Amino acid sequence: MTGLSGKHHVLFLLPPGWDALSKALFGHAAFNSFLHGKDHYAPQQIDYFVGFRPPHGFLKTLPRLKAIFSLGAGVDGFLRDPEFPRHLPVVRFVDETLQREMAQYVTMHSLIIHRHQRGFDAAQKEHAWRQRMLARPTREVCIGILGMGDIGAVTAERLLMFDFQVIGWSRSRKSVPGVTSYAGKEELPKFLARCDILVCMLPLTPETEGLMDAKLFAGLPKGAWVMNVGRGGHCNERDLLAALDSDHLGGAVLDVFQTEPLPPDNILWSHPKVTVTPHIAGITDPRNAAAFVVDCVARAQSGAPFKNVVDLNKGY
Amino acid sequence: MTGLSGKHHVLFLLPPGWDALSKALFGHAAFNSFLHGKDHYAPQQIDYFVGFRPPHGFLKTLPRLKAIFSLGAGVDGFLRDPEFPRHLPVVRFVDETLQREMAQYVTMHSLIIHRHQRGFDAAQKEHAWRQRMLARPTREVCIGILGMGDIGAVTAERLLMFDFQVIGWSRSRKSVPGVTSYAGKEELPKFLARCDILVCMLPLTPETEGLMDAKLFAGLPKGAWVMNVGRGGHCNERDLLAALDSDHLGGAVLDVFQTEPLPPDNILWSHPKVTVTPHIAGITDPRNAAAFVVDCVARAQSGAPFKNVVDLNKGY
Repeated sequence: MTGLSGKHHVLFLLPPGWDALSKALFGHAAFNSFLHGKDHYAPQQIDYFVGFRPPHGFLKTLPRLKAIFSLGAGVDGFLRDPEFPRHLPVVRFVDETLQREMAQYVTMHSLIIHRHQRGFDAAQKEHAWRQRMLARPTREVCIGILGMGDIGAVTAERLLMFDFQVIGWSRSRKSVPGVTSYAGKEELPKFLARCDILVCMLPLTPETEGLMDAKLFAGLPKGAWVMNVGRGGHCNERDLLAALDSDHLGGAVLDVFQTEPLPPDNILWSHPKVTVTPHIAGITDPRNAAAFVVDCVARAQSGAPFKNVVDLNKGY
Repeated sequence: MTGLSGKHHVLFLLPPGWDALSKALFGHAAFNSFLHGKDHYAPQQIDYFVGFRPPHGFLKTLPRLKAIFSLGAGVDGFLRDPEFPRHLPVVRFVDETLQREMAQYVTMHSLIIHRHQRGFDAAQKEHAWRQRMLARPTREVCIGILGMGDIGAVTAERLLMFDFQVIGWSRSRKSVPGVTSYAGKEELPKFLARCDILVCMLPLTPETEGLMDAKLFAGLPKGAWVMNVGRGGHCNERDLLAALDSDHLGGAVLDVFQTEPLPPDNILWSHPKVTVTPHIAGITDPRNAAAFVVDCVARAQSGAPFKNVVDLNKGY
């Protein structure tokens, strides 16, 4: 990074798996880097905060903070802090690798659902040769994406390659090639009625929290599947289980949960119609994250505007 | 179909699942259709044969046969008949639906392998929250396709969309955008050495029979996966099991087998490193097949050349 000089005091708060990587990756010569929980630092020296979900009340203990850089695509972990310093810019990391991983996950599970791969898995356990033709071609199957942002658009592109119908729902109308856009609460019922597979990729905000509830599930066609790669807070798990058990829904693929890690005694683990994965649909690449942080600090120093600043009123 | 007139005597030999469909689909006004095993017919009247795998010696009992229309993409089921009437044209059904289904299957299982989905399935059974980051991006993962024909080319296009490296091996050099082509026996070792996932999409011919054996597996990198959607005859299952059990291979996804249906006591069903599916990667769509048969008969009547006539010396 050219043009970056001086010493910027940057505090990193990272999950355990990142500790080993963090020093090497974030040890840029222009930074004075501190790893929270490991390095000693003076709170009043910190210029920038980098991380995922600081404990509530933590950020207000850093009086000289100039900006916050979120390593996750969703910033709900920051904004739920009642003492969050709302005067500071929050920059959201938009990671191409993460977008591609999410798109892989959604395409893979859409194909697993469409091609009845779980039925073939079950037949294998019974040593049973049970042929089954595809009931219909992908062009007759509609996948609806709740939340048609950057990640939704990349995902739609992959799904369209397989000739799935793709529709999107978002707060405001979007223009994504090949995707019919539905916008706002009043168009939600029309959108839901078309979904054979509903995929949640929304940001978690007060408006979207708990959106996937009994009423929403009832608006899906009988036999529809639900996939959640947004946040656990989007989905009322009790309502989901009721819709699965009444056979209104065909199944669910869940990567996020109301409580994470999902407790061992949670019924979702062993439900025959549920696939559970441990919040791995899209993971931020530490190498890209390092470049993001360097870019942010360089912009701050030169006075250039940040990219992808969060609108605190919208929450994304 | 315009221009098709008169009565053509067409004999259909279809698997059980097709019986109900066959009359409606193949009951074209210009045809006198007979369903083998159900309708009475005089062998000396039959003009055209339509089906998958007639019993050996059967076709020579039809003295007036003018052409053979294969409903499968592979014609090995015909050519293995020692009494096959080799003077007759064999027309191979090239079905876009089948190509797309095969491409779906290979892409889905490549993503399942790449993203360790089977590991997450196992963790779910144990109610264990075991996060695992992807070891490397798709652009560092190489998928090698044995047999780069129509189906291989469509499959490559899908895999490239996910940024996998794709290479192909075939008898003669091919030009498929984004795919490095290896040709002939002498380039096979170089091809194999690059494959993280090897996908067999070859036609079954005397040259390709048993190609996937101990020697081929030894030429793959340690930890490579093998996927067979060609024919069971391509793969020496005993050698495959040895390569899996020695931990040289990472796993196998098999849709075709030396004996089909795969017998219930076959060890492949319960092998922890093997996914078994019952020959469903690509299934001919009866609606498209009907159009194919009508087109073939119309061409025969008008003297137009058939499309996709099999080269009996090559076997595809």
